[in-house]
Amino acid sequence: MIAVGSELLRPDRVDRNTPWLKERLLELGIPVVLQVVVPDDDDVMEEAMAAALRRCRFVFVTGGLGPTSDDRTRFAAARVLRRPLEEDAAAWAVITARFRRRGFRMPKLNRVQALIPEGAEALPNRAGTAPGILGTSKTGHRLVLLPGPPAEMQAMFQAEVAPRLEGASGVGDGVRTAVLRIGGLPESVIQERISDLVPAPGAAASLSILPSAGEVELRVAAPGAHPTEPQRTADRLAARLGDAVFTRTAREGIEHAVGRLLAARGERVALAESLTGGMIGARITRVPGSSRWFDVGFVTYANSAKEDLLDVPPAVLRAHGAVSRETAEAMARGARRRSGNAWSVAVTGIAGPGGGTPTKRVGLVWIAVVGPRSRAACYEFPGDRRLVRRLSATWALDLLRRALLEANAPG
Amino acid sequence: MIAVGSELLRPDRVDRNTPWLKERLLELGIPVVLQVVVPDDDDVMEEAMAAALRRCRFVFVTGGLGPTSDDRTRFAAARVLRRPLEEDAAAWAVITARFRRRGFRMPKLNRVQALIPEGAEALPNRAGTAPGILGTSKTGHRLVLLPGPPAEMQAMFQAEVAPRLEGASGVGDGVRTAVLRIGGLPESVIQERISDLVPAPGAAASLSILPSAGEVELRVAAPGAHPTEPQRTADRLAARLGDAVFTRTAREGIEHAVGRLLAARGERVALAESLTGGMIGARITRVPGSSRWFDVGFVTYANSAKEDLLDVPPAVLRAHGAVSRETAEAMARGARRRSGNAWSVAVTGIAGPGGGTPTKRVGLVWIAVVGPRSRAACYEFPGDRRLVRRLSATWALDLLRRALLEANAPG
Repeated sequence: MIAVGSELLRPDRVDRNTPWLKERLLELGIPVVLQVVVPDDDDVMEEAMAAALRRCRFVFVTGGLGPTSDDRTRFAAARVLRRPLEEDAAAWAVITARFRRRGFRMPKLNRVQALIPEGAEALPNRAGTAPGILGTSKTGHRLVLLPGPPAEMQAMFQAEVAPRLEGASGVGDGVRTAVLRIGGLPESVIQERISDLVPAPGAAASLSILPSAGEVELRVAAPGAHPTEPQRTADRLAARLGDAVFTRTAREGIEHAVGRLLAARGERVALAESLTGGMIGARITRVPGSSRWFDVGFVTYANSAKEDLLDVPPAVLRAHGAVSRETAEAMARGARRRSGNAWSVAVTGIAGPGGGTPTKRVGLVWIAVVGPRSRAACYEFPGDRRLVRRLSATWALDLLRRALLEANAPG
Repeated sequence: MIAVGSELLRPDRVDRNTPWLKERLLELGIPVVLQVVVPDDDDVMEEAMAAALRRCRFVFVTGGLGPTSDDRTRFAAARVLRRPLEEDAAAWAVITARFRRRGFRMPKLNRVQALIPEGAEALPNRAGTAPGILGTSKTGHRLVLLPGPPAEMQAMFQAEVAPRLEGASGVGDGVRTAVLRIGGLPESVIQERISDLVPAPGAAASLSILPSAGEVELRVAAPGAHPTEPQRTADRLAARLGDAVFTRTAREGIEHAVGRLLAARGERVALAESLTGGMIGARITRVPGSSRWFDVGFVTYANSAKEDLLDVPPAVLRAHGAVSRETAEAMARGARRRSGNAWSVAVTGIAGPGGGTPTKRVGLVWIAVVGPRSRAACYEFPGDRRLVRRLSATWALDLLRRALLEANAPG
């Protein structure tokens, strides 16, 4: 795995491609045995690719396929494969069409993006201009060049590379994994509840606990020789954790679970957001098809907006303040009435760094859910402005999820 | 920089030593030019160390100095330096004393930790048993082996390595950088406009171009020996790029620039978001103090919400569709009128994957800004749902920024 880019060598930058690719490859049974970050330098790149190709059946290179003078990956690859670069007609047609559609004159620079080492294959890029490149070394090892922007790289890997790898001989039967994602419980509480279910060191299965701003992922992995082990362990964990598990699909957020629950009931939710400024709406609409359960959100950052758009009584704001149970509930009731939806969620709080007082500190957040089942909750979130806002959005979605589950429960 | 450990190659693990070391080294004027993660394998390690020593004056290796059978770093280093391992008496005394103090019988295994390549120097470890190792290759390049646990590595680097590096000839006095961040121009267009200003290879300054979903960062770096060079180059680039530069501060987004412009005018913006679902509001409220220029946003995901909350005439929606210049402008006018703000921004488009038609494809987005200066723009963004939405939010903020600049312009 070779990540290309001088900027990735700086302390303030991280390479987001390698972790993602490592996970996909492991799923396909290809463990990564060498990881390299190289600068935009032909010689260093060529040496790294050559060394990796000597040792590994597959070498993945991300980045450096752009049109600018510091994008050197295709040149280094051509040298390693000992093939001249040739213009690929199909790739060239795609690039020019792309610029035409966006109304920009096509800069001459982009022509270089259609250059492919002779005998290699151009991989279409549906999300950007740079095609990927799939080459083969003299020893039959494969060199896969992917674009650096994570969205382009991921789309190309899924659409073009993964299907080819699945057919490649010698790709093992992989590592099996099972995932649980959990909302509404801190990591330490989860750890305590499941301590007796954690596989012992040396057992076939292993468990990773990956927390991320209010959502915790448990990932059970085992070698392909124990294909049922991850699922079995995950089942036991799920039974123990109950409603806190919102999905067993990797990369799904609470917004996916909320969407399924609302869609099944044929109901919609309206939002009333203060400190989150639109983050909850942004998360709900991440899910394709979310227009079935979401139609309207009110971002009421100012008190006047809470009064005008959500009919929060000025007396409530005066008596209890904008960050209070009463205001959160009035916001939610207002959003529900104005939208006519079955459900509404409201969030109000102090994100910081300013705005805290001795009685209402930075991190204080009130969340209200109003619907066939209503809930309100108060949190004092740790962390900076960014984390307080992210946690607020996540826990608000989870409170809605739990109210939906309760409404579904018999009796 | 070489991080040793098979576990670091798994997807769920990150190497915490490399980022920390990169930052310390840059402060000392040593930019990192190659980063490698290797498994606990003598051959791979030896090859990586040898390749790095050929190219670099300093090679830092973290991890693999423990007492167990998979700790192979000292053996690989001895082979690279072509020196036998010898027991270092001082290191041995420290290890035994450490165990005695803690009341443990010293495991035989730990004896290996006192082995040092002949001619190399043992670096005392105040936080653990494994001493570090400082060796020199035939070409005079330095090989520095540090323990893997971050606390031990950091303590050893600060106490033993940094003082030696400061005295090493050829180590500069740090790297100076200057940053420009650019909105509203694709990377290749930027590159074309500035091509004659890019520092030549070998010049004191170097330029990195870092695009990220609609924002592009130019970063000029130069060694401390040329302290004014980055600023001077950045000034020339800024003069060339004009209004496209929205900040010269790293990590600031367009929302910071928009906030400053609005605050200076004492005006506010209202938002009308469709496909972005709240993302623009979320970005604006990232900035502390944003309540001075932002009070209200309407997330109108459904047509009915566009009619009810923003007074978009049903006839406009019927005649032109939800994704049209007319609807975007009507949304913006509605948000402005309802809020009473000086400015408003509206976004409507097709995020995909569904919803596209032959005439209105996925990625088509209309953005309207209404205020003392108004603007509307249409884009066909590439990429998947996630990227289309991110680009929409970024370009909407940039269109507002440009309208604000125009309103500020004399005449």
